[in-house]
Amino acid sequence: MTQSTSDISALSVAGLRRVLEPKSVAVVGASADPQKSGYIILRNLIEHRFLGKIWPINPNKTEIQGLRAFSSVMAVPGDIDVAFIAVQAALVPNVVRECVEKKVGFGVVISSGFKEIGLTGRDLESQIVSIAKKGGMRLIGGNTIGMVNASNHLIASMVPFQRWKDGGISIICQTGLFAGAAADWIMENRIMSLGKVIDLGNKCDLDESDFLEFLGNDQGTKVIGLYLEDIADLNRFASVSRKVSLKKPIIMVKGAQTKEGTVAAQAHTGAHPVDNEIIDEVLSRSGIVRAGNFGQLLDYLKAFEYQSLPAGNRIGMITLSGASGVLAVDECSRLGLSIAKLSDHTKNSIKAEIMPDWQPVDNPVDIWVGMGPLAEKAHSVTLRSLLQDESVDAVLAILLAVKPADHDVGRIFRECASYQPNKPILAAIAGGSLADRWFNELEQEDTKKIPSYIGPDSPERSLNALAAMYLYSQFLEKPQ
Amino acid sequence: MTQSTSDISALSVAGLRRVLEPKSVAVVGASADPQKSGYIILRNLIEHRFLGKIWPINPNKTEIQGLRAFSSVMAVPGDIDVAFIAVQAALVPNVVRECVEKKVGFGVVISSGFKEIGLTGRDLESQIVSIAKKGGMRLIGGNTIGMVNASNHLIASMVPFQRWKDGGISIICQTGLFAGAAADWIMENRIMSLGKVIDLGNKCDLDESDFLEFLGNDQGTKVIGLYLEDIADLNRFASVSRKVSLKKPIIMVKGAQTKEGTVAAQAHTGAHPVDNEIIDEVLSRSGIVRAGNFGQLLDYLKAFEYQSLPAGNRIGMITLSGASGVLAVDECSRLGLSIAKLSDHTKNSIKAEIMPDWQPVDNPVDIWVGMGPLAEKAHSVTLRSLLQDESVDAVLAILLAVKPADHDVGRIFRECASYQPNKPILAAIAGGSLADRWFNELEQEDTKKIPSYIGPDSPERSLNALAAMYLYSQFLEKPQ
Repeated sequence: MTQSTSDISALSVAGLRRVLEPKSVAVVGASADPQKSGYIILRNLIEHRFLGKIWPINPNKTEIQGLRAFSSVMAVPGDIDVAFIAVQAALVPNVVRECVEKKVGFGVVISSGFKEIGLTGRDLESQIVSIAKKGGMRLIGGNTIGMVNASNHLIASMVPFQRWKDGGISIICQTGLFAGAAADWIMENRIMSLGKVIDLGNKCDLDESDFLEFLGNDQGTKVIGLYLEDIADLNRFASVSRKVSLKKPIIMVKGAQTKEGTVAAQAHTGAHPVDNEIIDEVLSRSGIVRAGNFGQLLDYLKAFEYQSLPAGNRIGMITLSGASGVLAVDECSRLGLSIAKLSDHTKNSIKAEIMPDWQPVDNPVDIWVGMGPLAEKAHSVTLRSLLQDESVDAVLAILLAVKPADHDVGRIFRECASYQPNKPILAAIAGGSLADRWFNELEQEDTKKIPSYIGPDSPERSLNALAAMYLYSQFLEKPQ
Repeated sequence: MTQSTSDISALSVAGLRRVLEPKSVAVVGASADPQKSGYIILRNLIEHRFLGKIWPINPNKTEIQGLRAFSSVMAVPGDIDVAFIAVQAALVPNVVRECVEKKVGFGVVISSGFKEIGLTGRDLESQIVSIAKKGGMRLIGGNTIGMVNASNHLIASMVPFQRWKDGGISIICQTGLFAGAAADWIMENRIMSLGKVIDLGNKCDLDESDFLEFLGNDQGTKVIGLYLEDIADLNRFASVSRKVSLKKPIIMVKGAQTKEGTVAAQAHTGAHPVDNEIIDEVLSRSGIVRAGNFGQLLDYLKAFEYQSLPAGNRIGMITLSGASGVLAVDECSRLGLSIAKLSDHTKNSIKAEIMPDWQPVDNPVDIWVGMGPLAEKAHSVTLRSLLQDESVDAVLAILLAVKPADHDVGRIFRECASYQPNKPILAAIAGGSLADRWFNELEQEDTKKIPSYIGPDSPERSLNALAAMYLYSQFLEKPQ
């Protein structure tokens, strides 16, 4: 199941570009029935205006969704870089055989019913791998939901998407979520943008190291997210991920961390049992940042994408909610972040500009005066002062999105950020009916984005992201 | 700052009803300026149609927001149960003096500038407490955002609310969030309903034990949420909370758990340093369920409100996302929950009704066949089978809210739940554009609600809630 290093390195430079930037794709099992995966994949490609040729393959149709259909890949009057295969598992060996004959470069096996279902499936999977290998064709999957490359509009997923927004975050995963339901939720709620997503599925041939190496060299990719249940070739992964980590951050969720989880992973992607202690060691040496779950993964990815790394771990905090400030300080302590000791200059200028005489200023700066006519000034003065204070490495703004505190949040934050563009700012929007508007202002597409998180646990989520950024900055300074 | 037990017990039966169910309230500092707290409190009371008399107090006006205003409480031609005091701190002693003279039962001191700002404020606070005490009047606050009792439409908060929905969850807190920004967010997004909310502020007089005892006896309150930075009288709290815990669950977030957090709490509510190890011990003996942050608090509260307690810790899981299933199993392991071993009957009937021949059935039940025409049947058959299996104590359904899996979620879940009304079901909606609609169907107001969580970390959040329910059920079975 694993490849020798030389074999792959050759592939990853020229070859993998062909699978993510194909000039032509076939959808084998293309369908006119909206319930079938072969329908949805084709629909996505058409609706998102894939920048290449699309060949629907179906032995019983001459036209599908307005495109001419072909009885098999053999019948296609042109080259095929990638075939998306969405037919019953039992039919896949024959499809792969025909693909080999047609000199298709890559097969993305959407069909399930392989290694993940036990012995019978494992045999079938070995069969298709061996057919492909003999013919020089490479496989992704089986049991994959598909893949996405937003830059050429290759939205090849068996989950329908209304919209997809391109960005600097790319994801490699042993799950369909990030080209499926999670991505659908991310895109509909405009949580973030995603550049490339590869669901590895069962990893019968190409694996995480192949795509990691590719994304490491990919100009469009700024940050990489990983979800893995097992690792195909740990030595290769260690060397590739370390090389990539030195260039761009890799954030990873490791599934199957417990004995029970490993059993479940076996049923999911036929993942083989692994020694998690060894993996933990490898990941840490490689500078890979760990996330505890999918929520954290998304939180971290956008913080890394939008902001520079902090120069240290001293956090300056603005709060309109004393309790959120207290809990945030508790969380800093737990995470090994330190509460910046503000300079007298900072304290005095905040005091002089916005606070009543009797109100002491400390970190977190409690700007309750910002509930009312002083809202804009309180946020702006405090944010600017914290950013300009040399004892502050990063700023967390805990915002209360309620009417008395309303102001032109997006403009204020961008103005202040421009004084210190390399000092990270994160915004935790601790609820309120204005939360969505503020979020949109802070994460506006055409400007430097402030990573923003909404909800009662947003201060903790932001601090976890800051701690992850600090950890990675430590790795870059002194790789272990 | 603390009361003797006899003193308070007498109060809590008759007296505290008067503060939460007043027949008449005064707003001292009532204002026509929309930026002032005295404006917003009055506005909330009027717009939410408070079921009692409202007396605006302002020496410079004869009418405010359409109501006749009075120069002082003394001038009011009728009784006043509660005065909400929203004037500058320095003016509060005189207001309290007049309230005493007028025989006002309770003063809710919204003004800040007391104990939380240091020595000067502490003196001022002692002053008002001593004036009130001599006159037999009781105080809440200072530095409180206000309080809410939805049953009589007493929305007395300095944050404006468009809507407020009454429910069985009540909250006592040393923060304004739950009568402020968090509540605003909860109400606007219809996350849950809240019955009574008391922001204790600085707790210069009445404290958590007073209100905890009251809510323990309150018919409308089914579950109690607590946020505390310190505890005024630990012995009394221990005895009251244990008594209440045996009747209804108390979920608590403790702020200021670290040395640094304690310093921050000092600045927030003038909280005094406490020994967290002793508090942890007390809370555990009292059967109080701990939540790690505000997000968890809300998650737990609604799970406890909507569902019965599980009879054991064996979880049955439905998943449409294998990876979410794997991570959920990992989380179960960490939380001390066990993965139910499904009976052969359960496995066989799920297999017979919805699975292809080659697909094994195990727990979590991976119903990927539910992506397509089988969506409704797959969810319904699996949910019903798990609920009817005696080896399953609680069910977590991990849903993928995407089009191919769309079905009549609300009806299916309610039908299935009706077979086993005492077995808890929680729903984790792992994203997708249909998430909001499904959420609304599952948490419909007029039926038994299924606690639902949206987002990439929703399976973990749900399992934490189930673990909390199991822990509490253990306490009830065998109080320590």
